[in-house]
This record gives sequence, C-alpha cells and structure tokens, in this order.
Amino acid sequence: MGAKPFGHISLPPRSEKPRENGVTMVLDHCLGMHAVEDLLATAGDYIDVVKLGWGTSRLFDEGLLKEKIRAYKANGIKVCPGGTFLEVACAQGKQDEFFNCAKALGFDCVEVSNGVHPMHHDEKLELIRKACSMGFCVTSEVGKKLRKEDERIAPEERVSMAEKELAAGSWKVIIEARAGGTLGMFDFKGNVKEELAGYLIKNLETDKIIFEAPNKSQQAWLIKRLGSEANLGNIKPDDVIPLETLRVGLRGDTFAFFHLG
Amino acid sequence: MGAKPFGHISLPPRSEKPRENGVTMVLDHCLGMHAVEDLLATAGDYIDVVKLGWGTSRLFDEGLLKEKIRAYKANGIKVCPGGTFLEVACAQGKQDEFFNCAKALGFDCVEVSNGVHPMHHDEKLELIRKACSMGFCVTSEVGKKLRKEDERIAPEERVSMAEKELAAGSWKVIIEARAGGTLGMFDFKGNVKEELAGYLIKNLETDKIIFEAPNKSQQAWLIKRLGSEANLGNIKPDDVIPLETLRVGLRGDTFAFFHLG
Amino acid sequence: MGAKPFGHISLPPRSEKPRENGVTMVLDHCLGMHAVEDLLATAGDYIDVVKLGWGTSRLFDEGLLKEKIRAYKANGIKVCPGGTFLEVACAQGKQDEFFNCAKALGFDCVEVSNGVHPMHHDEKLELIRKACSMGFCVTSEVGKKLRKEDERIAPEERVSMAEKELAAGSWKVIIEARAGGTLGMFDFKGNVKEELAGYLIKNLETDKIIFEAPNKSQQAWLIKRLGSEANLGNIKPDDVIPLETLRVGLRGDTFAFFHLG
Repeated sequence: MGAKPFGHISLPPRSEKPRENGVTMVLDHCLGMHAVEDLLATAGDYIDVVKLGWGTSRLFDEGLLKEKIRAYKANGIKVCPGGTFLEVACAQGKQDEFFNCAKALGFDCVEVSNGVHPMHHDEKLELIRKACSMGFCVTSEVGKKLRKEDERIAPEERVSMAEKELAAGSWKVIIEARAGGTLGMFDFKGNVKEELAGYLIKNLETDKIIFEAPNKSQQAWLIKRLGSEANLGNIKPDDVIPLETLRVGLRGDTFAFFHLG
Repeated sequence: MGAKPFGHISLPPRSEKPRENGVTMVLDHCLGMHAVEDLLATAGDYIDVVKLGWGTSRLFDEGLLKEKIRAYKANGIKVCPGGTFLEVACAQGKQDEFFNCAKALGFDCVEVSNGVHPMHHDEKLELIRKACSMGFCVTSEVGKKLRKEDERIAPEERVSMAEKELAAGSWKVIIEARAGGTLGMFDFKGNVKEELAGYLIKNLETDKIIFEAPNKSQQAWLIKRLGSEANLGNIKPDDVIPLETLRVGLRGDTFAFFHLG
Repeated sequence: MGAKPFGHISLPPRSEKPRENGVTMVLDHCLGMHAVEDLLATAGDYIDVVKLGWGTSRLFDEGLLKEKIRAYKANGIKVCPGGTFLEVACAQGKQDEFFNCAKALGFDCVEVSNGVHPMHHDEKLELIRKACSMGFCVTSEVGKKLRKEDERIAPEERVSMAEKELAAGSWKVIIEARAGGTLGMFDFKGNVKEELAGYLIKNLETDKIIFEAPNKSQQAWLIKRLGSEANLGNIKPDDVIPLETLRVGLRGDTFAFFHLG
C-alpha cells in the first residue's frame, strides 16, 4: 500500500509494522485468492496476524493454502492455523506431525489453546515451548469454547495462566471470545462484562494480550479503555478498515473520545 | 480442488460428489465471477447444489448468469433458480415460459415451492411432474414464507406433503427455514423447536430431505442428530468451509461429538 | 450490464439511471477492486450513489481510492466520502482542504452531516452551500449518531431541518439510521417506530429524501409504504440485488403487495 489521501487530516499516532502494540489479528475462515488480494490491497498495512480459523486449513486445497500463506507473509503478516486444529491433532496424538506439517506449509505462527480438548495446563505449556523451539511465533489462548466451562475459570486463574504462557514463550496471549464475541469478557449478547474485563485489564500486561473482539461495540470499548494501540483479535476481513477508523477517531463511535476529549 | 494438507489428521468418512447424502445446498443471491471463482477454488468439493435465491436471476445480466451456471455445473454442482421465482411465474400464468427459459439458460435443477403464491397441493405436484418430464432435477420445498401461515401447517401435513412430492419425482424435499433460519423447525430467534424437529426427523426419510439451516447452532444441532451426512441447505457461500468443519469435528461446536464421544 | 433473462416475467415499472426516484445508495466501507468489479457487473444498474463510509477513505491507498471512484463514476454512480469524515475535518478546521482534496480525488458528491461534531445548523447550511458552489452533488443527513442525542430531536425539527437543507442546495436529505439501522425511525432492535416514521413520511417530500434502511424488514416496510421507487440508503453491497427484488415483487416479503394486492 502506498501514500494515503487527505493527508492534511491529522490522525493519532499508530505503530508501524512489524508492530508489538496496536496489533490487529484477522480471522480468515474461507477467503480465496481474489478476496486475499483485495484484503491486502485495501487493508494490508493494518493487519499483523491472520488466523486461518479452527480446522479450516485441513479442508483447503494444499496448493491454494500455500499460496495464501505466501501472500500474507509477503505483506509482513504472520499466519497461523487455528488453535482448535492443534487440539484435534492432540486428541489423535499427532501434535508432532501437526507442527512438522505446519512448518512445511509455510506457517510462521501457531496458536496453542485448550478450548475443547481436555489438557492439563502443563501440557499446554509444553506445547508452547515445543512450538517456540521449532521457530514458530506462538500465540496461546486462555478460555473455553463452551460458555458453561468458560464461566468456571476464575479471573485470578485467567491471569495466572496467561503469565505462565508468556513465561513459556508465547508472543501474545489471546483472551478467548470466539468468532461471535459472546464468551469470556463478553456475555451471550456480546455486551462487555465490566467487572471481569476491568479485572483483566488491571492485572494483565495488556501489551502482551490480544483481546478477541469481533463486534464494533467491543472494539470501541477496548479502544476507549486502552487507546489506539489495543491489541485486538478475531476481526472479520471486512472489518479491518472499520476497526482502524475506530482506532484513529474516524468513526462516530470513537469521535468524541479523540476529538472532544 | 486437489489434495488436502495435514493428511495425517484423520476425519470421519464423507461421501464424495456426486453425493446423495451429506448434501450442502448453497444460497447465492449476488455473487459475481471473482467471488464464484474464489468459492469454487476454496470450497467446490463441498458444494452439491447452488440455489440462485428467489427471483434474483431475473435481475442479472443474461450473459453473466449463463457464465455462473456454466462455472457451477463444470464443478459438478447442480444449479437452480429460487422457488419464489417460479411462484411469480405461476402468478402470471407463465410457468411454461419459465421452465423453457430456465432450460435454455442452462439450469439443470428447479425448485418447486408454494411459499407465497396460493396453490393447491395437486397443482404443485403437477409442476414437479412437469419439471421432471423436462429433464430437470427437482427440489421441492415444504413451508410458507410468512410465520403465521407456516405455523398453521400441522407436523403430519408436512410429512404427508413431503412424501407426495417425493413420489411425484422430487430428488429431495427442502424443509423451509428462509435465508434467516427463523421459520419452520426454528423459532423467530433461530432456536430449534425440539418437538417439531424431532417429529420431522423421526417421520421423514431424512436422506431424502434437505433441512434449511443457515445458522451455525442449527447446523451443529442437525449434525449431532443426523451425523456428518445430514443434508443441509441455505448455507451462505462464506459458511461452506465452516459447515464442513462442523461435519467432520474440526470446530469447537462438534469437537466433543466426534472426539470425546 | 446488458439484457436481462426471463423477459416474459413482467415487473413493475422502475426509473432508469440517472434516477431521481427509486434511488439506491450503497455503503462501501472496504471493497477492493475485485469486489467492485463484481458489484458493478452484477448490480451496477441498480446503484445510484456509493458512500465510502465515514472516514474510511483516509486509510485507503490513494491510487486505489482514485481507481474505485473512477470505476463507480464510469458506471453512472455518484461517489461521496462519509459525512463523519467531513465532521472530523471541521473539528480540525480543515473543511476547505477537505473539499479541495475530495474534488482532486474525483469525488462528485459529498455528504454534509452533524452526527457527532457539535455544529450550529446555520454552519451546516453554509457547508451545503459551499459544497454546491464547488460543483458537488450534496446529500445532507439529519440525525445524531448517539441514540440519546438522536432521540432529543423533535419530529417537527427533523422536518424543518430537512426543508432548510434542501433549500440550501442538497440534492437529497438522508434520514440517519446508521450502518446497523438502529436509530432515527428505527428502535434499537431495528423495528420501525411507526409513529415517527408515519409523521416523517407524511410531512416530508419523500422523493427528496433517502431513508437509511440497511435491514430487509425496514426495506420491505418502506417499499410497501412508498412503492418501488422509495429512495433507500446504507444498503450493503451484497444486498443491492436482494433489495431490487423487494422493489419489484420477486421476493417473499413483498410478493403479496405486488401480486396479490
């Protein structure tokens, strides 16, 4: 992407790629190459990580999958398969094959989660260390896919698990909210659980955390709490530009925060 | 589509195309050729029928419409115009012109419904027979587009109509839920009406039925009831791969069903 | 776009482009060139104005932005940046630079709104006059982005503002509902506020008004009230064809209105 228009309209400062803060992680579950090209041409500068959601990679044509990975990486974007896919591999005792195959396909990042597969936390830490030792950038995810199970995790335990995963080598820890944004810090309608969210923000090193926040109101809430440089995940491909407008006060939802503050 | 990656991760068995079971019917209401190419390259192996929703075909450029139909058929996918479009033709007394024109454009499948146009069931059966005699593969749809009217149809009547339509020549009978999934077996919020759904599943020959189920929770429910090989319809183009992950246990929502069962 | 198929199925009359009535205004917040090409090939005949939503234009590659504007205009479609973007410019005292830059990029239309930036109505009228004097087609928007603020505007005041803006030179006045359709004439769930909507329809010159109506039920309601030639805005790119089917009775939601009336 080249120069941007309307240069006289000033914007709040934003990190440049490769970013450590203000990271946007996109959830891609189906894009073909025309759509990938469109995404990179319109929003490539604003994307740091692409997650090929859950086990979708298993169902792609291998040549096409390699082409997608190559295109993302050529634009300075990390690419990882979904955490659930690694959990399926673990359930089949195939984690080594999974890592080797991911490496061979060109993935430079993997997500380690225990959202559905029953796994002791030490085993998860071991997977993180293993992936790091193979040269992967690692994101690890705290949270369960089923609301009932997720609600049983105490706030202190979430913080403690995140800290241990970072110590084991995770580049960032992801706070699970699923593709719909109705879990973890958010209730089943997608509203922010203020108490839990406030606790996590206060007790976590937020520049090491990616908050999954697929919905606009969730993104605006986090930006008003953490600023333009919040790390946000599970962003839909069509929402990358809209999210970036929220980050810099170019949309109604954060206009007052940036311009009337 | 060629070989799939991560071949060491095993998947539950799935029929190959041309499929009689485990059918996925996609609802296409607007795709241009770039999007069609992306869809075929990413998910062509997992699509059995494309429905060009309701009367959208009437508004397309004729050359483009033919090109789309050709592209789908070249990938082993049946293509039909929407049932409502045939109902509009019937309301204007133009059903013969409709069938002839559909044939000339290359459609190899038609949907026969009585969702909005008042029509005696015998007349619907006659349309099914007529379409079959012209060489079309026929899907017919049971249900009304307006909730109030739809709720008046007794469960026994739904089963009886489906049986008669199959006897008249329908390849599959579709259980109407609309593009939003808020009708028929689902309430206005999209939740499964357990009693009605259970009755239909018990009393219908489910491998001859396509259940419209546009939402993830509906798809997961049906897969857990009927298995990987449920016939599902009104799938959004971007949801074909996600649906296939549900069918084979590669997503959180059906992980336990396939891996912890 | 060329000839349409199924010509024997007759449709209610519709204006041809350039249209003064029955206008469809599309909200484009992220499309790349493949998607723009698809949109024009499938639905170009049914689009009158494209709004590049809020401040998204500021974040695009300048060359790509110019290419998009050119493509839309070459298909007889007006293109404007979003109203919020001009409000950001005003908040920075850069409205002149904004208009000059919009002109240089090729925009032939601008939207003037006061949805978030505090602005006296006389100042808004002045912006409308200024834009007209520079040769822009002007749409102006009545309504606030925050529900609490929006609800404070009396129905009479909405009508009076619209009339003054038309007198100042606006081509059409837009009734704000946001991208989600949960404001102005619609409640937070997107349902029509019958009393307010009825008042506005009765007291406004509706062929000079564009009603933002992103959801199907809102579009169907307005078409049943105002007919095929209602002016509708904030239409998603994928919904242009579906909207057009509602306008001409090719979808269940307006079938009865057109065929059983």
